[in-house]
This record gives sequence, structure tokens and C-alpha cells, in this order.
Amino acid sequence: MGEEGNRAREEPALVQLRITEPEADEELTGDREAYMASVLAKYRRNLVERTKHHLGYPYNLDFEYGALSQLQPFSINNLGTPSSRATMLEKNEYWGYITNCGTEGNLHGILIGREVFPDGVLYASRESHYSVFKAARMYRMDCVKVKTLVSGEIDCSDFQAKLIENQEKPAIVNVNIGTTVKGAVDDLDLVIKLLEESGFENRFYIHCDGALFGLMMPFVKRRERLRHKFIGCPVPCGVQITRKTHINAVSRDVEYLASRDATIMGSRNGHAPLFLWYALNRKGYRGFQKEVQRCLLNAHFLKGRLRAAGIGAMLNELSSTVVFERPQDDEFVRKWQLACEGNIAHVVVMPNVTVEKLCVFVDELVRVRSVWSSGGEISPPCIAAEVGRENCACLLHLHGQ
Amino acid sequence: MGEEGNRAREEPALVQLRITEPEADEELTGDREAYMASVLAKYRRNLVERTKHHLGYPYNLDFEYGALSQLQPFSINNLGTPSSRATMLEKNEYWGYITNCGTEGNLHGILIGREVFPDGVLYASRESHYSVFKAARMYRMDCVKVKTLVSGEIDCSDFQAKLIENQEKPAIVNVNIGTTVKGAVDDLDLVIKLLEESGFENRFYIHCDGALFGLMMPFVKRRERLRHKFIGCPVPCGVQITRKTHINAVSRDVEYLASRDATIMGSRNGHAPLFLWYALNRKGYRGFQKEVQRCLLNAHFLKGRLRAAGIGAMLNELSSTVVFERPQDDEFVRKWQLACEGNIAHVVVMPNVTVEKLCVFVDELVRVRSVWSSGGEISPPCIAAEVGRENCACLLHLHGQ
Repeated sequence: MGEEGNRAREEPALVQLRITEPEADEELTGDREAYMASVLAKYRRNLVERTKHHLGYPYNLDFEYGALSQLQPFSINNLGTPSSRATMLEKNEYWGYITNCGTEGNLHGILIGREVFPDGVLYASRESHYSVFKAARMYRMDCVKVKTLVSGEIDCSDFQAKLIENQEKPAIVNVNIGTTVKGAVDDLDLVIKLLEESGFENRFYIHCDGALFGLMMPFVKRRERLRHKFIGCPVPCGVQITRKTHINAVSRDVEYLASRDATIMGSRNGHAPLFLWYALNRKGYRGFQKEVQRCLLNAHFLKGRLRAAGIGAMLNELSSTVVFERPQDDEFVRKWQLACEGNIAHVVVMPNVTVEKLCVFVDELVRVRSVWSSGGEISPPCIAAEVGRENCACLLHLHGQ
Repeated sequence: MGEEGNRAREEPALVQLRITEPEADEELTGDREAYMASVLAKYRRNLVERTKHHLGYPYNLDFEYGALSQLQPFSINNLGTPSSRATMLEKNEYWGYITNCGTEGNLHGILIGREVFPDGVLYASRESHYSVFKAARMYRMDCVKVKTLVSGEIDCSDFQAKLIENQEKPAIVNVNIGTTVKGAVDDLDLVIKLLEESGFENRFYIHCDGALFGLMMPFVKRRERLRHKFIGCPVPCGVQITRKTHINAVSRDVEYLASRDATIMGSRNGHAPLFLWYALNRKGYRGFQKEVQRCLLNAHFLKGRLRAAGIGAMLNELSSTVVFERPQDDEFVRKWQLACEGNIAHVVVMPNVTVEKLCVFVDELVRVRSVWSSGGEISPPCIAAEVGRENCACLLHLHGQ
């Protein structure tokens, strides 16, 4: 499938076109302008169409930034150390910046961990985002993959066993606040408790991958995490927050900029903070709270509808990611832009995903599903290993167990 | 100074403001909308003002993307392997993608070098961009700094000596196509010749940091490099190009995306390729050629005006970066957004920098300079070490040598 958001691969109209040289007389006739306008119009129609059926990836497509279009003509590039940004944080001991994407946040957080503990071992559950393992390769760190529970959460008994195996080296731990596929939230308190009990006191560093739920979490349960995807923004970006005391480990003075280089990317898209500022101001705390509650309700609604239709489905607590049996029709998967892994697929219920959209989706899934079974009896596949027996709709688990 | 492009630190109006919570009745009265509109209007005026006096950093601010504003409302996020993009390249053996900025291109190119030669030593001239040395630290690579000539080019005799000292390990070389401060172009052919003569045949990897000049170079001399800054684009971005045969060394399959992860950042701003496509199509080869020629001419004009005013100044061949004595007035430096290093400052002559703007700049510099000398005789500082004796305007070098 290979696409997230509106991935350009699906839009043959624009990006695969060669750059063509303007003819000398085109400037006079305006033919070139007309040609480009027609390509853009086609691309726009395609984006409208794709946006209609977007379910599989955690992007809030429900945004409106009309007032910001006046700034589009400006080059806004943020360089050097983003100290002034820290004023958005409440306490003096934090430092943060707006990244180009979630991967950059993970690269930055894990790099700080390595600079604080140069011989530290990176621990991450096997359902962590792929950028966590990429960071380990890039930074030449020892990396230990920890097992997960059926829910997708880190398996803390395996974590403890792995800690004891590597007791001589400090621990750098990636904790997921909403895993990519199942939306599982690792138990941060338990992770810290195990570290302390296993003799790692003052020898551990934790990076929280806030992913999607970092921003939703404060509205369902008190945790200090912050991420962006929920906000809905036309450019990818993220928020990285760390302790001020650690940031010097990755900073270097750059005379040319008369500033310090403390981020991963030198240049940062200056439009992204504008979008975030605009959205945060328009919606406010109460606005976000309402949206998060609606998402969780809608996710429960979707899970209920799927189960009622005899389809295995799981929804983690605090999560708006509904995991269910993988549709066997690639065309259907592409149309709804579902992300699949093994026997499962998921829908991430974002603010722009309405109950009506979910109904259309389930109805269509039920319809195509009966086609796969050639009109005969539908025998749901067993996905107990992926979602747990209680969430599986196969004949064995539906009635027995 | 700490700013490049329109760095937000200078705009107190927007980013340093706290996010304020909307009052319950604001939604009804529209007060919130009015407040935000006034903040944005102030920010916009500030950007207009900053753009007027932008000289020090290599951004082409002369762009017009009116037709693209219709796409601003869409979330366009490119993930996975950007294979389809490769169609913009002429030959099958190349692979490339559009990055978030120049730093990402350097991080990517050097990472490939390390994966091809895991025990390779990174060689980079001391005037290379800071992200090159950051990459070495991040990737835990041995890194050898090579001396530079007065022009800013890599000192090839020092390079050869360093190669011989480290002969047992493969060489990964960063070659600059326009250094950050002096706009110097390293001699790629000579670098390759030295590597082969020093016993590194088939044991070296070269990353070219195209920086600004990568894109200008094809229009002044035949070299196959491509970069972005010259194009003029409202978001930072870059182009990374590498050999297809090498890209597998840094790629991993990601089932969730049903694609391969081959870039540094997972998400890539999908608007950036649109801006590039639009600009390339509108201007075409001839359009860029004209712009590059105008920039080089204007840079020569600026250097001539500075020298005529008794100010030491240097302009490298093939370069539009004019280096000159550092103004002693911080206010002046800030106003014109000049980048300074040690005793020198520079102006990067981009397409949006006109002869008129340069005249205003030189006139003002001459005026404030006479203020520094308190109306007495101006004694130009010696900057021969930075720009060479022939470009220095100090009393010793101006007349004697």
C-alpha cells in the first residue's frame, strides 16, 4: 500500500510528470499557465477524493486555516536553538521544539539518551515505531527488543528479564503512548518501578514516544505528554520535549548562526508552529477535550458495529484505534487507506471521522466480505493471537471460551 | 544573531505569545477571531519588513506560488520509499528524495557512506557545514578535519597527508559545492585523483554537499548536482540524490506502510515537492540560467562597489557569496540579517537581491562605517587571513603587500 495521509504515489497526475521546458512563445500565449492550472486542478480533485476515504492513518483532516493563507508567500525557516519557544511550557526545567515529524522526535529523544549514557542499552517493545529501531542502527547502540502483550503493551515480565540480563549497562527505554498499530499505551509507572527494583536507579533514561495519543492523553487521564497529530495540520510536524539539563549533551555552538544547534534538522519549517498556534488558540483546552471525547465514543461505536456484524475487533482503553480482521480485498484496503499488519488492520478514529462515515465503512466492509466468501457461509478467521480470544469472532472463540 | 530566513525569534508578536483559552462567549461574539486576525496581521507586517532587508542567508525570497494556495487546506504527507519520485532523474542508477532541509541531505548521504564502509573515516574540510560534524558524532564515526585554503576550498595537500595517516581504513569524503560562509567549491576531480593515488581505489565514498550552489552549478559549469535553495520556496527543503545500488544499505521494510523506509525522516512535507515542481515548470532551464547569470553579475557588482569604497571583499569563482569585513555594528548586522564568523560577514546574492537593494546596502554600510570611526580617518581592519592579501583593504595590503 505504502501511503499515509494523502500519499503522492497514488496521484499520477502531478509528481510523476517530468518537468517540461517552457516553449519560447508560451510566455506570451499563457499556454503554460493553463497547462499547469489543469494539472493542479486534477491533483486537487484527487486529494478531495482521497480525503473522503481516509481511515487508516492517524491524521486529523478536519482543519481550517483560512487566515494563515496570507502567510503562505513567506519563507519562514527556523534555525538555531529554539529557546524562545520554550515559553509555551509551564515549567523552567523543560525544553522543546517543533519537529518535522514524529520520527525526528524519536531520533532526538533517543540521541539525548545515548549522550547521557554513552554505553546505555536501548530497550523498546517489538511494537514500537520503526523509527526507534532505525535510531538504534544510526547511533550504533545496543538494542534489546521486548515482547508485547496481546493488547500491544510492553510485556513487563519480559522487560524485567531483559534488564537483568544486561544489568552492567545503563538502560535507555522507549515507552509508547499509543503504539502505531494497536494504539496500546505502555505502563510508564510500572516501567519506572521495574527499573528501580532491578538496580537501575539513576542509571536509566526514558523517552516517551507520544505518537498520536500524547496529545489526547491529557484529556482522558492526567499525563504530561504532548504531540501533534491530533491537532490536524497540513504539514507533518511534531513536538519534542525534554529536560533542560539534558539538552546540552546534544548541543553545539554554531558561530555562523550566532546560536546553538540543538535539534536534529538544522532548518525547521516555520509554518508548522503557526498552524499549531492557530489551532490551539481556536480550539482551546475545552475544544480539544470535546474532540477527544467524541473520538473515543466514535471508536467504541465502530468496535460495537464490527462485533455486531460478526467481525473480530479490539479497542484498547484510552485509545481511538480500532483493530480488526484484515480485509482480504486489496482494492478495499486501498480505497479506505487502511494500514495492515499480518492478519489485522486498523482504523484510527480522528475528529474528522464521523459516525456517518463509519457506518458507510462498516456497511461496505460487510458487503465486500460476503463477496469474498462467494455468498456462502462466512467463516471469520481466527485473530485471537493478535487481538485476544475475547475479541476474536472465529467460530471457536465466539461460542466456546 | 541566531536567525536565518525569517527567524521567528525576531518576531515577538506571535510565537512567544501563550496559547490563551477562548472564553465561552467568544465563539458567539467573534472576539477571538478578531484577536487572532490582529496578531497575524502584525506578524505579516513584520515578515514584510524582514524580507526587505534580507541579505545574509541563501534563500531566494522571490517566489510566487499563487496557484498552489488552493492545495494549502490538504494534509499531504509522503511516507515510505519515494520510488516514484525517481522519474525526475535521467538515469536509472540514481535514487533521490525531497528532504526537509539541507541537514537531512547531509545526514542521509553520510549515513549511506557509513553503511557502505562501516569502519570508514569521515574526511571533511573545517569549513564544511556544521551538520557534517554532527553526523559524525551521531553515527559514531571517526572524523578527520582537513585544513582549508584562504578561498575556503579544501586544502588538498593537507587532505593527502591525512589520507596517508589513515590508510588502513576506507575513506568517506564530504565535498562542498559552495561552503556556507565563503561559497567555496571543493575540487571534486582533484579529491578523486588524490584518493586513487593514495591507495583508496574502490575504498572510498564521496558525499557532495550541494548546499546552495548545487543547483546553480549546472548553469555555470557542467556538474551533476542539484539543490533547492536557489529555487525559492516558502518551506525549507532539499533534494538528496544517491546511487541506487547504495540505498539498500539504509533501507528497511515497514509492513505497516507496505513500503520501505529509506529516508531519514519518516514523514516528508508533501507540499515541498509541489513548490519545486511549480517553480521548475514555470521557470524552466532557460529561466534558471538567466537567474544564475544575473546573480553572478550582481555579486561581482557588489564586490566592486565594496572595494571601491575601501572595504576588503572576496568573491570566489562560480560563487554569488560576497565575503567582506565584519560590520562592527550589531544593529546593522541584525537589520540586514548578515551571517558573521570571526572577522568576516557575507552577503549571498540571490535572485530577489537587486542592484538597487545592493546600492542601498553599500551606501548604508559606508555611512555607518564612518560613524564607527567617529568621523576620523577610517582604518580598515586586516582580513588578509580570511580573504587573502589581494582582497584585503588594510593599509598594509592595499598599497604594499
